[in-house]
Amino acid sequence: MRETKEILEERYQKFVEASLCINMERGWPCREQLELSMPMLDLVGSRTELEREVDYRGYAGTAGIEPLKKLFADILEVCPEEIYIGSTMSTTLMYDIVNKAVLFGFDGHEPWKNLNTVKFICPVPGYEKHFKICETFGIEMLPVRMMDDGPDMDMVERLVAEDASVKGIWCVPLYSNPTGAIYSDETVTRLARMRTAADDFRIFWDNAYCVHHLTEEKYQVKNIIRECEKAGNPNRVFEFASTSKITFPGGGVGLCASSKENIAWLTKNSLLQLKSGDKINQLRHFMLLKDPEGVDAHMNKHREIISPKFDMVDRILHEELDGCNLAEWDRPKGGYFFNIKLKNGMAHAVWQACKDAGVAITPAGSTFPYGNDPDDAYLRIAPTYPPIHELETAMHILGVCIKLTGLRIFGEECI
Amino acid sequence: MRETKEILEERYQKFVEASLCINMERGWPCREQLELSMPMLDLVGSRTELEREVDYRGYAGTAGIEPLKKLFADILEVCPEEIYIGSTMSTTLMYDIVNKAVLFGFDGHEPWKNLNTVKFICPVPGYEKHFKICETFGIEMLPVRMMDDGPDMDMVERLVAEDASVKGIWCVPLYSNPTGAIYSDETVTRLARMRTAADDFRIFWDNAYCVHHLTEEKYQVKNIIRECEKAGNPNRVFEFASTSKITFPGGGVGLCASSKENIAWLTKNSLLQLKSGDKINQLRHFMLLKDPEGVDAHMNKHREIISPKFDMVDRILHEELDGCNLAEWDRPKGGYFFNIKLKNGMAHAVWQACKDAGVAITPAGSTFPYGNDPDDAYLRIAPTYPPIHELETAMHILGVCIKLTGLRIFGEECI
Repeated sequence: MRETKEILEERYQKFVEASLCINMERGWPCREQLELSMPMLDLVGSRTELEREVDYRGYAGTAGIEPLKKLFADILEVCPEEIYIGSTMSTTLMYDIVNKAVLFGFDGHEPWKNLNTVKFICPVPGYEKHFKICETFGIEMLPVRMMDDGPDMDMVERLVAEDASVKGIWCVPLYSNPTGAIYSDETVTRLARMRTAADDFRIFWDNAYCVHHLTEEKYQVKNIIRECEKAGNPNRVFEFASTSKITFPGGGVGLCASSKENIAWLTKNSLLQLKSGDKINQLRHFMLLKDPEGVDAHMNKHREIISPKFDMVDRILHEELDGCNLAEWDRPKGGYFFNIKLKNGMAHAVWQACKDAGVAITPAGSTFPYGNDPDDAYLRIAPTYPPIHELETAMHILGVCIKLTGLRIFGEECI
Repeated sequence: MRETKEILEERYQKFVEASLCINMERGWPCREQLELSMPMLDLVGSRTELEREVDYRGYAGTAGIEPLKKLFADILEVCPEEIYIGSTMSTTLMYDIVNKAVLFGFDGHEPWKNLNTVKFICPVPGYEKHFKICETFGIEMLPVRMMDDGPDMDMVERLVAEDASVKGIWCVPLYSNPTGAIYSDETVTRLARMRTAADDFRIFWDNAYCVHHLTEEKYQVKNIIRECEKAGNPNRVFEFASTSKITFPGGGVGLCASSKENIAWLTKNSLLQLKSGDKINQLRHFMLLKDPEGVDAHMNKHREIISPKFDMVDRILHEELDGCNLAEWDRPKGGYFFNIKLKNGMAHAVWQACKDAGVAITPAGSTFPYGNDPDDAYLRIAPTYPPIHELETAMHILGVCIKLTGLRIFGEECI
């Protein structure tokens, strides 16, 4: 039975009257996910031997403890000497590396602050914090369309080849935020090999979801550090990962993987700022996760909790929207987000309607540089945080809001 | 009996032959001190309630957990809203604040990078890392003589009044590194009240040793945050402290205290860089230390361990050097260092002689900007880290090295 405008408005009104407060705005793990890592807090105690390759309690050791570097190196298929473990979050490392490139420059290169213009390529839709880092440091953003297998590489190659002020690109190569795209081998190879006018061009490879699978199949992207090396551009890429969504977002471990030369540059330029990260917490992480198989087993438990949420989002979107041509989406194979592409001109209105009904989703436009989605078409939702019964309600609200907005803008025939 | 050149050389040769390796270079707590905080590692476990004012495991909360902010506020006699708890070390906060002043400027002020020159006043001898931060950001350093009650305030007042490019001063107000000086009330008041040509002048008040007493008397300096407020310069000071030498240097908590306006500026400019510090570790610290009395009791245990080391340094310096006029020193009342003022022209040679005998002390010159002690007279030693029997040997070596160097430079009559 087709819903009429009156039925939709009645449904919407009922939601509004329920005074809900449901948060699907950020990629936050839910309480059940956080519980998974509670045993970690018992692994280091007053009797734990902490005098290892250095005294983990003391100042010594800058780039992280050896066993944890080894674990991350195994996961990312690099050597431990290609790993720097710093602060508790990878965003800190991304921010600090851009900051240091601006102020001091990469080894032997002009600090970016001395240049008139610095530009970064930003695949869109993309991750808001990457764009905010650019904004913070006055870096001009060049949006490039995100495809199913990575950014539009013809465009990327053209931009980097012709303009020496293009100094970087942001990539979330696996289960991209927010589209869920997986970079193909060809995309990785082209990024590693492409000719860049700037010789201090850097790829910021935010491998945030490298072990965050949502299906049986554990997708992997080609090792870009090795590809860059093979292509004769060994220092082109900084790769990032963290345990924020493996253990505790507020008490995890952030890391950077790169060429030995880049890691030496990063270590040298970080020593004064942070003599050493929290090596005791690093040990806790190593003891919980142990090896890639341990990480895998732990991440399977996360998947069991959140995969049903992604299924539900997909199911309710179909229930609510099949038959009308207002929205497109794919059920992602990993990561933390659903990307919904609406008909142009709808996103802000849908976001507002959800908000008025007590459902917070990521503000429309957020996945574009300067918050500006020129088509006003993209919405990102983050289904992990709310309890599943709240998520169910929220998704029905979203469905109703999309249909009501469609009705208002495009008239009866769209629903 | 007076020692002859031959006796001294023989003593020195014996030390060299013993192939020692003793480290008095850095202010590192010794193993026994680290053991004091091991019980902290049992305080948070898998059954600890972590969902408090926010979920301590999650992303929420930026400036630190409430109970720990309260504890630090009580110690520093400010309000919890005047506290920002960020990374694990206060050096990170100092570095980042200078970095942000350079790139973004303090609220409503020109970023320092847009100015031709930025200068900081550096009381000398002082703390090497402060000077390194200036060097990193291209800030010119103006050395000002350190007195027993703080820097030469006539000079400071003159410099800040006449030159708008003087933007800051580094201070370690209590048990100053390395001289052990304690800032007098008058010094604090003059710093708070002085007229500065720059209206974004800032005092970097590194209260690193605020609870690190080495005598029965617990010295305190006047509350500079309140003094600045009273003087109509509420945003003039950033105060720093940390638990690096209370609990674990590598796994502690760093904090900044300042006016609410400055804390708002710092929080706003840090949010993207570090969404939240490790709130679980903050809780561990709160549970160990509890309140100012708890901190006091804990610090008394530190004092019992290290105070005998300071006594021994003082005793052996007297044994070795009384009667010759080669060196002056004071047994400090708190903090981590002994400052030895030698006759001019001796410091590098003594440092090298110690090194050749297997004793590492802080490189001569380190306590001056650019490593340049114009009189080549100051040596800093850090007696806390080596075991007491090693410290005993090292101090005799130092004594012999001072006398041998004196002999070489000034001839027989100096010993």
